[in-house]
Amino acid sequence: MYRTHHCGALTEVEIGKEVTLSGWVQKSRDKGFIIWIDLRDRYGITQLVFDNDRTPKDIFALAQTLGREFVIQVTGKVIEREAKNIDMPTGGIEVSVQDLKVLNTAETPPFTIEDETDGGEDLRMKYRYLDIRRNPIKENLIFRSKVTIAVRNYLSNKGFLEIETPYLIKSTPEGARDFVVPSRLNASEFYALPQSPQTFKQLLMVGGMDKYFQIVKCFRDEDLRADRQPEFTQIDCEMSFINQEDIMQTFEGLTKHLLQELCGVSTGDFPRITFEEAMRTYGNDKPDIRFGMKFGELNSVCQHKEFKVFNSAELVVGIAVPGAASYTRKEIDKLIDWVKRPQVGALGMVYVKCNEDGSFKSSVDKFYDQEDLKNWAEATGAKAGDLICVLSGATDKVRAQLSALRMELAERLGLRNPKEFAPLWVVDFPLLEKDEETGIFHAMHHPFTSPKKEDLEFLSTDPAKVRANAYDLVLNGNEIGGGSIRIHDKATQERMFELLGFSPKEAEEQFGFLMNAFKYGAPPHGGLAFGLDRLVAILGGKETIRDFIAFPKNNSGRDVMIDAPAALNKEQLQELSINTL
Amino acid sequence: MYRTHHCGALTEVEIGKEVTLSGWVQKSRDKGFIIWIDLRDRYGITQLVFDNDRTPKDIFALAQTLGREFVIQVTGKVIEREAKNIDMPTGGIEVSVQDLKVLNTAETPPFTIEDETDGGEDLRMKYRYLDIRRNPIKENLIFRSKVTIAVRNYLSNKGFLEIETPYLIKSTPEGARDFVVPSRLNASEFYALPQSPQTFKQLLMVGGMDKYFQIVKCFRDEDLRADRQPEFTQIDCEMSFINQEDIMQTFEGLTKHLLQELCGVSTGDFPRITFEEAMRTYGNDKPDIRFGMKFGELNSVCQHKEFKVFNSAELVVGIAVPGAASYTRKEIDKLIDWVKRPQVGALGMVYVKCNEDGSFKSSVDKFYDQEDLKNWAEATGAKAGDLICVLSGATDKVRAQLSALRMELAERLGLRNPKEFAPLWVVDFPLLEKDEETGIFHAMHHPFTSPKKEDLEFLSTDPAKVRANAYDLVLNGNEIGGGSIRIHDKATQERMFELLGFSPKEAEEQFGFLMNAFKYGAPPHGGLAFGLDRLVAILGGKETIRDFIAFPKNNSGRDVMIDAPAALNKEQLQELSINTL
Repeated sequence: MYRTHHCGALTEVEIGKEVTLSGWVQKSRDKGFIIWIDLRDRYGITQLVFDNDRTPKDIFALAQTLGREFVIQVTGKVIEREAKNIDMPTGGIEVSVQDLKVLNTAETPPFTIEDETDGGEDLRMKYRYLDIRRNPIKENLIFRSKVTIAVRNYLSNKGFLEIETPYLIKSTPEGARDFVVPSRLNASEFYALPQSPQTFKQLLMVGGMDKYFQIVKCFRDEDLRADRQPEFTQIDCEMSFINQEDIMQTFEGLTKHLLQELCGVSTGDFPRITFEEAMRTYGNDKPDIRFGMKFGELNSVCQHKEFKVFNSAELVVGIAVPGAASYTRKEIDKLIDWVKRPQVGALGMVYVKCNEDGSFKSSVDKFYDQEDLKNWAEATGAKAGDLICVLSGATDKVRAQLSALRMELAERLGLRNPKEFAPLWVVDFPLLEKDEETGIFHAMHHPFTSPKKEDLEFLSTDPAKVRANAYDLVLNGNEIGGGSIRIHDKATQERMFELLGFSPKEAEEQFGFLMNAFKYGAPPHGGLAFGLDRLVAILGGKETIRDFIAFPKNNSGRDVMIDAPAALNKEQLQELSINTL
Repeated sequence: MYRTHHCGALTEVEIGKEVTLSGWVQKSRDKGFIIWIDLRDRYGITQLVFDNDRTPKDIFALAQTLGREFVIQVTGKVIEREAKNIDMPTGGIEVSVQDLKVLNTAETPPFTIEDETDGGEDLRMKYRYLDIRRNPIKENLIFRSKVTIAVRNYLSNKGFLEIETPYLIKSTPEGARDFVVPSRLNASEFYALPQSPQTFKQLLMVGGMDKYFQIVKCFRDEDLRADRQPEFTQIDCEMSFINQEDIMQTFEGLTKHLLQELCGVSTGDFPRITFEEAMRTYGNDKPDIRFGMKFGELNSVCQHKEFKVFNSAELVVGIAVPGAASYTRKEIDKLIDWVKRPQVGALGMVYVKCNEDGSFKSSVDKFYDQEDLKNWAEATGAKAGDLICVLSGATDKVRAQLSALRMELAERLGLRNPKEFAPLWVVDFPLLEKDEETGIFHAMHHPFTSPKKEDLEFLSTDPAKVRANAYDLVLNGNEIGGGSIRIHDKATQERMFELLGFSPKEAEEQFGFLMNAFKYGAPPHGGLAFGLDRLVAILGGKETIRDFIAFPKNNSGRDVMIDAPAALNKEQLQELSINTL
């Protein structure tokens, strides 16, 4: 037996007992006549003591040779510590070691195994197995495991079945790029890895399995952006004989349960806003509502003067930044530089300081009087002491710019408290999105999303106006889930494909098996998928998903630890009937 | 709301209530003035009744148009049935329908949606979504979902963490063939899909996560045999600071729990047998011990006469087939033909009938007297009424042949009761396997399996003699799990690679990251993996894994429903920098 207890288990209760522990040498302090060693395992740290009086000589000598991260096994007696550490569960005791076995030696690790490490991101990724020994990463993985078991039990208790769908499927050129897998047994043919189990879960509904979920890896061959992974995990769900309200209630219930169980936070019913309102109020379809700074549209109160910039703008819109009237000219100039960065892309920014005495001082005093500025303050909800930041231009662009500014300022002002949770449903998404270059409509979610009945009439006349039975679940400014009620009849589905520019042949080739299935009695159904990596990160109070994945890939899609991907040898390629170019 | 109740919910308790149900039309009996419809969903069947008296005329007319598998919604009153069906939970009631909505029509399905269907395997696979509507498949998938949640809760409660390991990893030419995935962002390079998370779980142990599990898809590009899938699911487990006994206790505990929870079967401690004993007693390293017919080796009691066939054989071995002394000459000839089939490959079979009067009648009476045959009966445990079947030849071959005969006869005699569960540990597997052609030793399990300490001395002198700390869990003649204690020090691992014929460069290239990790303090560790597909099938009383997979592939690795794999278009290939040959 390697251990009687974990390294986080012993307290004053065990004083006097003989115990055996195993773990890693966290650190060693050798005072010549006495040696203290912090022994670490997954559960905590226990202090070991070796001294001339009580420890056998050979054991003492062996203890002097132990380096950081050696793996050892010790047996000894639990004794009371002289200098107790009340910050540690095991801080009241130490183990006076009688026997010591070195289970494995260790070279000096390339970075320190401490909460705050001296290792940079690249080094930590290359030695991820050492990074995982550090508390922050270890705790994240433990937290992730707790989240998934909580999800599974909640959904199982509600009658959901976890059903595995295949990983080796068929490529569909629609949407993002697939990862593909050459088939050796079927030369020149390829499987694709699923971007999501979308069609399979719909087939399960056709198959009558009315409450499905799966925690499942999905794959998307995208040009990677920061914090995107080519493989990611979804909590994928689908239900039959339900309407949108049923779905929202079910998964709001799940989210409340997770917030309660894992974060100890009780939340009331989640607020709901339409896509249109979200865009108007926050310039964003996944608004962070932990703080205000709602958009105030100013067109009606700013286009009556001689200020051409505003008069020619499609939208003039501002936010009131709380307490920021005290910003110096230099601070405000920096803010203006920030919005002019190419990543944001504003041409400039107008500002109004709302002085404590009720007066206003703006960067456009030449054009607007106090009465005008008072109206702006009213429109943006600005109070004395606030700074109103105003952007103008084409509606879509200016909303995105002001939204970026809003988030940046909230971050700077400490308004994005990771311990506060503000969930929100965004509903009534547009069904279609027009590609500005080609004029072709794309499905905003995917081609199986059903249009709202009351908007059906616009399908041919004004497709952009048609809203979908689609909903996103937003938490703290991040989309954590999204879904829709699906089209379940063949006629509507065919019409959608037509609208999306699929020829009947193309539609048949790519989705034929689903359309075929719909011939045999498809029930009304819909679903939702959560992005597990992000959900776990946000519940854990972070926004970097990489720290919640055991073995993540870097921004070029590489696993630097195992050095993948890598070249294949000729024989492998030949067997697969492929060549590299 | 689509339904107030499921189709399996209503009983006499609800008589008088108005209810709404949704589901599929299972069947319709139209008597002109009255129509009965069986409405089906995942939970059961409820009988609907439409009649001239109580059903509105238009609804009655609509009901007459309903075909099999139409999806409908009905509202009506629960009434007592005149002719009750006590075999059905809902058999005491029916619903007198007042309102009917056709949610979707259905074409006539290509096979009947009944427990016993008229659809062949190929048709059922092509329309798997319809096959899933059938009770046998539906119940299998529900059972599988129950098994996985039970596994997860059991292991979580024991402190195991479920940790996801990556799917896009690196190809290792060792072992079976990998499926590979061309990388677009890293031209000419490929990821591989994992054959198992073996190295990653070992890295997690190096990372200190001492109790890991994962229910995970694995991939193996093999020439497919019946009932093998290119993608399959494993319950993958690993522990640190444990010995073989700890692992066996832990996963015996899990298996007992599953047998209890899912099959209602209590089992005592699992018997254990060494690989050597299993081969000697059953000719097989995964013996079915639900029945006897243990091997009796006969060399010492049959090589003293003039029967050359036996005298020249390395092994003469027999089994006693219970009650088969009554087989006719014709039946026995058929048995002899059976063992001579190329799949079995015996050259012939000697038999002895153990007559009720204590005398013996054999096919070799020319050579052996009653005393000889009595000795044979003793060696094989044959009783009056039994038939002794004897094969002879080279040890390995004859054991495999007699094992095949033993299983076949047990099947014919109904001794393989699927409701009876006989678990068994097989331990002390050989570490290495010699390739008869090349003379090269291969790892029997994988190159990380540790040799038994007491056998280390034979590593250089007699490698075939070295036993491994490796164990298989066998249930009803199927290997349901297997694992080993791993090598955790670099020196032994390097020696193993050398023995397996890896040059240091090859070992470094393929397993460098693992050997590197072992430099930084690897704990003693080991694990086990269950094949989930087979485990679920056996617990479910079946042996065909395909019926327990929602969307299986056929024996050519094709998904005939979605028609995958398939050709890619030129643009896709170009982006991936590959060509098909």
